[in-house]
Amino acid sequence: MLMQTALDSGSARLSALREELKKRGLDGFVVPISDEHMSEYIGSYAQRLHWLTGFGGSAGSAAVLQDKAAIFVDGRYTVQVRDQVDGKLFEYVGVPASSPAKWLAANVGEGAKIGYDAWLHSKGWVEDVARALAKKNATLVPVDGNPIDAVWADRPEPSNAPAIVHDDKRSGRSSADKRAEVADWLKTEGYDAVVMSALDSVAWLLNLRGSDVERTPVALAYVIAHADGTAELFIQPDKVTPELAQHLGNAVTIRPRETFEGALGELAGKTVAVDPNYGVAAIFHALEGANAKPVAVRDPTILPRAVKNPVEQQGHRDAQARDGAAIAKYLHWLSVEGPKGGLDELSAAAKLREFRDEASDMLRDLSFDTISAAGPHAALPHYRVDEGSNIPIAPGSIYLCDSGGQYLDGTTDITRTVWIGPGEPSPEQKDRNTRVLKGHIAIARAVFPQGTVGGQIDAFARQFLWAGGVDYAHGTGHGVGSFLSVHEGPQRIAKITGAQAGSDQELMAGMILSNEPGYYKEGAYGIRIENLVLVEERQIDGQEGDYLGFETLTFAPIDKALVDVSLLTGEERAWWNDYHAEVRRILAPQLEGDVLTWLEEACAPL
Amino acid sequence: MLMQTALDSGSARLSALREELKKRGLDGFVVPISDEHMSEYIGSYAQRLHWLTGFGGSAGSAAVLQDKAAIFVDGRYTVQVRDQVDGKLFEYVGVPASSPAKWLAANVGEGAKIGYDAWLHSKGWVEDVARALAKKNATLVPVDGNPIDAVWADRPEPSNAPAIVHDDKRSGRSSADKRAEVADWLKTEGYDAVVMSALDSVAWLLNLRGSDVERTPVALAYVIAHADGTAELFIQPDKVTPELAQHLGNAVTIRPRETFEGALGELAGKTVAVDPNYGVAAIFHALEGANAKPVAVRDPTILPRAVKNPVEQQGHRDAQARDGAAIAKYLHWLSVEGPKGGLDELSAAAKLREFRDEASDMLRDLSFDTISAAGPHAALPHYRVDEGSNIPIAPGSIYLCDSGGQYLDGTTDITRTVWIGPGEPSPEQKDRNTRVLKGHIAIARAVFPQGTVGGQIDAFARQFLWAGGVDYAHGTGHGVGSFLSVHEGPQRIAKITGAQAGSDQELMAGMILSNEPGYYKEGAYGIRIENLVLVEERQIDGQEGDYLGFETLTFAPIDKALVDVSLLTGEERAWWNDYHAEVRRILAPQLEGDVLTWLEEACAPL
Repeated sequence: MLMQTALDSGSARLSALREELKKRGLDGFVVPISDEHMSEYIGSYAQRLHWLTGFGGSAGSAAVLQDKAAIFVDGRYTVQVRDQVDGKLFEYVGVPASSPAKWLAANVGEGAKIGYDAWLHSKGWVEDVARALAKKNATLVPVDGNPIDAVWADRPEPSNAPAIVHDDKRSGRSSADKRAEVADWLKTEGYDAVVMSALDSVAWLLNLRGSDVERTPVALAYVIAHADGTAELFIQPDKVTPELAQHLGNAVTIRPRETFEGALGELAGKTVAVDPNYGVAAIFHALEGANAKPVAVRDPTILPRAVKNPVEQQGHRDAQARDGAAIAKYLHWLSVEGPKGGLDELSAAAKLREFRDEASDMLRDLSFDTISAAGPHAALPHYRVDEGSNIPIAPGSIYLCDSGGQYLDGTTDITRTVWIGPGEPSPEQKDRNTRVLKGHIAIARAVFPQGTVGGQIDAFARQFLWAGGVDYAHGTGHGVGSFLSVHEGPQRIAKITGAQAGSDQELMAGMILSNEPGYYKEGAYGIRIENLVLVEERQIDGQEGDYLGFETLTFAPIDKALVDVSLLTGEERAWWNDYHAEVRRILAPQLEGDVLTWLEEACAPL
Repeated sequence: MLMQTALDSGSARLSALREELKKRGLDGFVVPISDEHMSEYIGSYAQRLHWLTGFGGSAGSAAVLQDKAAIFVDGRYTVQVRDQVDGKLFEYVGVPASSPAKWLAANVGEGAKIGYDAWLHSKGWVEDVARALAKKNATLVPVDGNPIDAVWADRPEPSNAPAIVHDDKRSGRSSADKRAEVADWLKTEGYDAVVMSALDSVAWLLNLRGSDVERTPVALAYVIAHADGTAELFIQPDKVTPELAQHLGNAVTIRPRETFEGALGELAGKTVAVDPNYGVAAIFHALEGANAKPVAVRDPTILPRAVKNPVEQQGHRDAQARDGAAIAKYLHWLSVEGPKGGLDELSAAAKLREFRDEASDMLRDLSFDTISAAGPHAALPHYRVDEGSNIPIAPGSIYLCDSGGQYLDGTTDITRTVWIGPGEPSPEQKDRNTRVLKGHIAIARAVFPQGTVGGQIDAFARQFLWAGGVDYAHGTGHGVGSFLSVHEGPQRIAKITGAQAGSDQELMAGMILSNEPGYYKEGAYGIRIENLVLVEERQIDGQEGDYLGFETLTFAPIDKALVDVSLLTGEERAWWNDYHAEVRRILAPQLEGDVLTWLEEACAPL
């Protein structure tokens, strides 16, 4: 009992970890936010950094030595880490100015042994840190079982939710067909097999989904796919329903998840593709240990997954139409209740969830924690509301809501920024919002040749803000999955260089991206206007070569109260009017009464 | 006599080279367009590829084996190489689809010895080709003296023109000050010396100029600069006038150019910086052979040279004002003489040269061979007129002229595309020209934050063409020197990826770039509108961070006849009117009579 009580405090947890390290003969240990699949969102069983430090952000890591410890976070979390993590226990260290590698190199003793969990780090990370430690003749040692798990008494079990079939009528393509494409790739490249550990790759390849991870409908599993079109699925057996087993068929062997490491050992003599961005160091070590030849290459499902087929495209349109109706109800509700006062960020987010639940029985989850951000919180692009941060949505202020749903037929992601009456936004607020809107429209209307990379059109979204001497410190667009991850690569619209830099991936017809320029005034307010767009081929009179543009997929009114119409060109006004005519056409049949009246007004031409 | 006659034919030259190779025990030889400084423009003494093959383009190479030979050119020269080079002697090979390395690897015999001149190739090239040859157990062998020089009886001597002082009142900064900056850099980086072989680096560092290379006012020379601020200049002694010697002062030791290789040997034990983009393989070999430690890093003068100081900026404005007057006279002359017929590309270029010579005694040379391109020739962005290609400038057609001058105070580069009457351009021609103009204006008006790379704003110039389903296959902007190279790095406005890709260099206040979108209809016509622009700091109400924009430096009328005014926005019309008001203000005082009347009309508001 005493022990249990003691571990409820941060210092007790840290002491327990240090004791455990001593027992194992280790001088230190590194704790990332990661799982065995290098997922963006991880299950509660893998929230080791949160357990140890209390830090609730989505990116960061800690390093623990016997006499000191540090937590490493980027600029987004500078404030939050001070609120949540005890500075007496952990030194706050900023990345990328520093890093665990640099901090360890500066703080370990000569010849120290620093432990790491090879199932939570990339091979590249291991090499970098080992190189840094070598300067002190210190070594980086893989642990046999995570030492935090040994002292985390009430650590949750990994989810045992069943995996479900993602029907061909939604995926638009059979798993056999996808596996045949991967098999062709393996043969062309001269590999015997590919190890897939990214959970959305596994889900996409086998047309299965799950609910083992919050906000992303994936099941904890690995796949080894072979050049003959067969595959082995490593998954907790009680997740596999008879329906799923039948769906997978004879060409897919189902094996217990815990046999995965051993199965890598069966690949002796084979050339095996592993994506170094998703395959953890332990996978490479196991293959090398078995005299297999791992080759670090991009997961072959990433590009075909990013290019949505016509069935998936239509699924997105359908999901967005339902999602838009929920958003319209929510915006109407805000317009009525907001000016009365009494709303707060948490209750508003809950109301939006209600509208989404009402709107469709196809909703399975949110696609991320709703960013329900009032006043100055809207200036934090990655703000996440909880009981501790919750503030009222004040009448006479700007409110930003970034949210999305996981529907069986598509993943949504939409941001609307609205003026909560009474009164009028300031001229500056209208100016900034209108510049963001003009940038949003410039992306929506963009036409570009085949071969164009997102970074080439990113400035279309920023140009009007730049002309006003301001900018936003995040990318303009990220890829989005089909009832999968809300952040999906490899396509991206972003600056070429810097912290949020884009990728070299050309935009291809069928890719879905967000279009989300913004503006953030620290301590005051924030603005973001986000729709999803689908890359489509364009036919142009007299064209030379192939040209692409965007079909906007997201339909919900944009707040007129924040627009200075005099700053819009004729073409921009035409876009607004066309867009809102389409919003009305799609949403009106799903709405009635006051909400419908409100919609008609919101969609009236400028 | 016979021998001399024989070598007038391509086959005789090729045979003579093969004999020479046999004598030296070589199975083949590679012939680039290059000099010992890896210059963009090379002296006639170094035109070995032209002598051997007849090819007159500015980029390409040949590989000669005993039984076959090939010439390698990129897409710009596909047509030209067939006109100029005998296909019976040389196989035509396209790069980058193939390369000398690939072709040699496919065509040499087992164990072949292939010669190369280490003074004409980069170290990277040597490593790539050696690796390719290794597959056939063939080796790449540096020659002792270029074998072409041994058989090229009437090879011109390198120029012995005197080097001249580039006055501090034009450079804006003393050589001592520049050398002190380089010395600081050497100390900070921990190098003992830097070898500079780029001719414009030598010219910039020592504030000297020359006329050893066509179109670029540089002197053939090397510099070794030391961490104590002293330097050694390796130059043909009779180029050094007493005035130059005095200008260089005691801290600069003048040594004969032929002692350069030996001097590298004196650097034993030293750490020596060499830019691998300009330092040929022979420099690295000499340093390594002497047990010096060459470090491949960027030439430290490149960035300070690119950022023009206020004196250089004013020099550019002054040079452009004079150059604009010559252009105005030329455009007026074209407007009078063109519709009569009887002009041709060569005579027009000669007339332009006359106007430039008349306009200023500061002109020292053209900054490149004038692109005087009528009708379908205008569709070749790199067209170069000669007696063989010269065609009439037909009345009722488009004429494109891209030209520039080397003035003592600045280097100019301007393109104007004009309609030669009588009659009217076609609606398509006006449409394309107006889209090019809109893109040009979008760059001229661009505002962007400090840290922006050229590739981020490149699409501003292309967006209106893209919307029409067309594009241009070259960059939008290149850097320009101050009475130096008309193409100067590291800044560039271009697509992120592909053959003409840009650089990672952020745009900085003081950099000069061209702004030259275009459109090219193969076999029909071509359009380009080019001004030079200077990056300048901007002050914006309410700005957050530092912002930049462009000051246009080039002033000459743009042809109204090719503009569809209905396609311009109010802001674009305002830019046109403001620009032409400035053209009038700057040029009118230099013009009179009919030309002045023409200018007033050309500059009248739209």
